[in-house]
Amino acid sequence: MAKRDLTPKSENMSKWYTQVIQQARLADYSPVKGCMVIRPNGYGIWEHIQKSYQKYLDTMEVRNAYFPIFIPMSFLEKEADHVEGFAPELAIVTHAGGEELTEKLVVRPTSETIMYDMYSKWVQSHRDLPIKINQWNNVVRWEKRTNFFLRTTEFLWQEAHSAHATQEEATSVMYDALESYRALAEEYLAIPVVKGKKSESEKFAGADLTTTIEAMMPDGKALQSGTSHHLGQNFSKKDAFNINFQDENDTTQYAWQNSWGLSTRIIGALIMTHGDDDGVVIPPRVAPIQVVVASASKDEAVITKCQSLVSMLKEKGIRSVADVSEKTSLGWKLNESELQGIPITLILGNRELEQNQVTASVRYNKSKETLALENCIEQVSNLLEKIQTELFAAAQKRTQELSFEANSYEDFKQIMSTTRGFIKAFWCESELCEKQIKEETKASTRCLPFIDTKGSVSEESGACIKCGNHATHRWLFAQAY
Amino acid sequence: MAKRDLTPKSENMSKWYTQVIQQARLADYSPVKGCMVIRPNGYGIWEHIQKSYQKYLDTMEVRNAYFPIFIPMSFLEKEADHVEGFAPELAIVTHAGGEELTEKLVVRPTSETIMYDMYSKWVQSHRDLPIKINQWNNVVRWEKRTNFFLRTTEFLWQEAHSAHATQEEATSVMYDALESYRALAEEYLAIPVVKGKKSESEKFAGADLTTTIEAMMPDGKALQSGTSHHLGQNFSKKDAFNINFQDENDTTQYAWQNSWGLSTRIIGALIMTHGDDDGVVIPPRVAPIQVVVASASKDEAVITKCQSLVSMLKEKGIRSVADVSEKTSLGWKLNESELQGIPITLILGNRELEQNQVTASVRYNKSKETLALENCIEQVSNLLEKIQTELFAAAQKRTQELSFEANSYEDFKQIMSTTRGFIKAFWCESELCEKQIKEETKASTRCLPFIDTKGSVSEESGACIKCGNHATHRWLFAQAY
Repeated sequence: MAKRDLTPKSENMSKWYTQVIQQARLADYSPVKGCMVIRPNGYGIWEHIQKSYQKYLDTMEVRNAYFPIFIPMSFLEKEADHVEGFAPELAIVTHAGGEELTEKLVVRPTSETIMYDMYSKWVQSHRDLPIKINQWNNVVRWEKRTNFFLRTTEFLWQEAHSAHATQEEATSVMYDALESYRALAEEYLAIPVVKGKKSESEKFAGADLTTTIEAMMPDGKALQSGTSHHLGQNFSKKDAFNINFQDENDTTQYAWQNSWGLSTRIIGALIMTHGDDDGVVIPPRVAPIQVVVASASKDEAVITKCQSLVSMLKEKGIRSVADVSEKTSLGWKLNESELQGIPITLILGNRELEQNQVTASVRYNKSKETLALENCIEQVSNLLEKIQTELFAAAQKRTQELSFEANSYEDFKQIMSTTRGFIKAFWCESELCEKQIKEETKASTRCLPFIDTKGSVSEESGACIKCGNHATHRWLFAQAY
Repeated sequence: MAKRDLTPKSENMSKWYTQVIQQARLADYSPVKGCMVIRPNGYGIWEHIQKSYQKYLDTMEVRNAYFPIFIPMSFLEKEADHVEGFAPELAIVTHAGGEELTEKLVVRPTSETIMYDMYSKWVQSHRDLPIKINQWNNVVRWEKRTNFFLRTTEFLWQEAHSAHATQEEATSVMYDALESYRALAEEYLAIPVVKGKKSESEKFAGADLTTTIEAMMPDGKALQSGTSHHLGQNFSKKDAFNINFQDENDTTQYAWQNSWGLSTRIIGALIMTHGDDDGVVIPPRVAPIQVVVASASKDEAVITKCQSLVSMLKEKGIRSVADVSEKTSLGWKLNESELQGIPITLILGNRELEQNQVTASVRYNKSKETLALENCIEQVSNLLEKIQTELFAAAQKRTQELSFEANSYEDFKQIMSTTRGFIKAFWCESELCEKQIKEETKASTRCLPFIDTKGSVSEESGACIKCGNHATHRWLFAQAY
C-alpha cells in the first residue's frame, strides 16, 4: 500500500470503518450475501481474544466441547420464546445427500436446544451437576443489513452453557461470567464497559434475565458487546428438554441454567474505539504483532541487527516481526505498520546502529522515543504495558465525555440530536414508554447499570422522563449498533 | 463409573471402539443423524492436536483466517471433477430469513471454491504470492454410514490452501505439508504412518496429485489420516477461478495451488492404535491431562500434599489435576483414570507420605514405580517422554507385523482373508485391476510409498499380481476404513 485513500475517522466514522477494515486487510466482502471473510490480520486478533478469554473459562472450570451445527426444527420449538425470537433469522437445510430431508435442519443460530437435549441425557443425579461447557464455533443468523464484524449473517463466537442444582449457584455463575466479560473488554481490549441488566423487551429469547456489557463508541452509539443470561428452568422443565435430577433427598428437581456469549462483533468495537485517521490501533495485549522492527538501510549489519532484535523480543514473549525487505522504503514500511495498528515500530538504520540506539515509534500517539539498544527489550516491554494503560484511559475519558444524565425528555432529546451518548434517565419500565422513546429519539434501553459484581442496582425515586409516572431506577439509554 | 462393562478390544475391536468412546466420555451420539457430539474429554485431545500442528503451520508461514461456511452452488460447478466428487454428499440451504433463496447455498464440504474466489481478487502481481492460508473449521459431507470420529456428517479439521507463482514451489510446499503430517502423527500421536501418492481413482476431486499418510490399525485395516494435494492450475485457470498474476516480465500467468487437510478422524486412529481392554490410552504429548494425582486417604496432610504436587507439576508445564474427592474410593479413582487413558496416575496415601514417596502407575503397561517425593517432578517428566517413545515403538512393531509383500494373487487373498494388513504388491496401474482386486479382497490401493521427503518412489520391474501385465511399482494395498 503505497499511498492510502482513507476517509478521516473524524469526518465520517462509518465510511472510515468500512475502508480501514479493507485497507488494513482485517476482513473483506465475500461473494455470499451478508457473510464476510476474516483475513489473517483480523483473525489473528480473534485468536488473541480467544486465548485471553480462555483463561477466564479455565478459571470458571468451563470445559470446551463441540456440538453439531445442525438442529432439528422441532428442538427450537420446544421453548416458545426461543423459537419466536429466532424464527425470522434461520437458515434452513432442506436437502442433503441428494435427498429431501424428512425433518428440516436449522443451521445453529445458538446452541441451547441441541446442547440441552444432550444435558438431559447426561444428568441423572445431583452428582452430575454442575455442567459447564463452552463452544468456540460459528453460528448463522440471517440479517437484512450487515456490517463488517458488527453484524454478519455468519459469525464466530464462544457460547458457554451451564446447568446447576440450585438457582443461587446459577445466578452466581451468571454474574461471574459477566464480570469475566468486563475484565476481557477493559483489561485486554482496552474498551470501558457498563455492566447491567436488560429490560424485558431487550432480553434474550428464552431467558429469565439477560445481563450485558455495553460500550460507548466515538460516534455516540452504544455497542452491546457480550451477554450473560440466566435461563431459569425455561429449557430444563419437563415439557422442554426435561433436564431433571435426583437431589440429595432423592426428590426430582429441574436444573437451573445459564448461557453466555461473546462474538467477533467485539473486534468492531476495538476498531472503532481505538482507530484514528491513519488506520487501526490495536491494544498490545490482543495484537497479533506487537512490534515491527523496520530497517532504514539495506546494509547487512542493519538487517542482521533487526533480525537479532526480533529474536530477542520473541525470547521475552513479545510478538514481533522484522520488516527488512529491500524492495520497500522505510516510509512504505512505516505506513504499513501504521495502517495495521501495530503498537510499536522500532526503526533501525546506520545512524542508530552506530550510536547503539533504536527509535521506537508508538502507533497510538505518534510519539517517538530513542532507546538504548543494550536494554531496549525491557523498555519495549514496559512501553507496551504503558500503551495498553493509556489506550484504556483515553477510551474511558471519551466514554465519560459521552455520558449524560437527563432529567427531562427535552434534555434527553437534545442530547440525542447532538452528540448522542449514554443517557441515564428515570424510566417507569413500561414497554410503551420504551418503544416511544426509541421511535422518537432512536435511543433504546441499554441496561439498568449494576453497582457491584453481584447484580445490585441503585434504588431511587423519580418520574419517568417519558410519561412522568413513578420510576425507581435510572436506566441507561443510547442509540444502539 | 463404578464397574465397567467393556467388550475386550482383542475380542471385537469395532464394538470395543463404540463402547470405549462413550464410556470414556470422548463423544456421544447426537440427535442429528450422522453427527456426533465431541465431549470435553475428546475435544481436549483435539485442542492439543491443534496446538501441536499449529507449530508446523507457523514454521511453514501459513496464516489462519476464516471464510464463510456457505458456498454458492455455482462456485462448486466451476471445477468439473470437484463438483462431481462432492455432489452426492452436499447439504443444501434453500431457505433463509423466511424466504426461498434465489441461489442455493451449499454447506462447505471443503473450501477450495470460496477461498479461491477471494484469492483471485487478492492476487494481481507476483508480489502477492505466495498466499498460504489455513482454516480450523467445521465441514459437512453427508454420509450414509457413520462412525465416531472416523466418518461423521459434520467434522472438524484444518484445511490449508496455498497459491504459488511456480509449480516447483507449490510441489515443494505440498511435500513439506505431507512431512508435517507424518511428524504430527508419529511424534505427537505416536502413530506410525506410510507416506505416498494416491492412485488416479483415489485422488482428491480436483487435484493433479494427492499424497497421503496411511496408518495401520490393530485389526489390519488402514486409515487414511491426512492428505496433501497439488491442484495444478485446475482451480486457477481462466474458466475456473481465474487466479492470474503478472510475472516479473509482465506476462500473465496462472497460479499453482495446493490444499491439505487433517481432521478429527485422526482421534479415531489414536483410540484404535493405543487403547486396550481397559479403556483408551492417550499419548502424553496430546493428552489434555498427563498426570492425575489421586489420594489414597482422606487425611488432610495427604490431600494437601496431592494438591501441592499438582501445583509443582503445573509449574513444570505438566498438565495435571488432583483427584482428592472424599466421596470416591481409590479404586474408583484408578478405574476412572485408566478408562480415560491418562498417561500417569500418582497415588499418594499415608504410607507413601510417611516414606516420602509416591507411587506412579503407568497407564499403558500397568507398571508401577515408586518415586522419591523430592525429585518426583523430574522423574514424572522423564517418564512421560519414555511413555511417548514406547507407545510409538509398540505401534511401529505392530504395524511391521501387519506389513506384508505378496508376489502372487493367491498370497494376497490369503493375507486378506486372515490377518489383513498392509500388502505391497506389483500393480499395472489399470483401473480395472484396482477395481477387481477391491471387489474380490476388499483391499484398495492405499498409496505408492515414497522413499524420501521429496516424493521419490522405487522403480522396479515385475508383473501385476492381478493381470500379470508389466508393472513398475509395488503399491501398498489394504482394506480401508
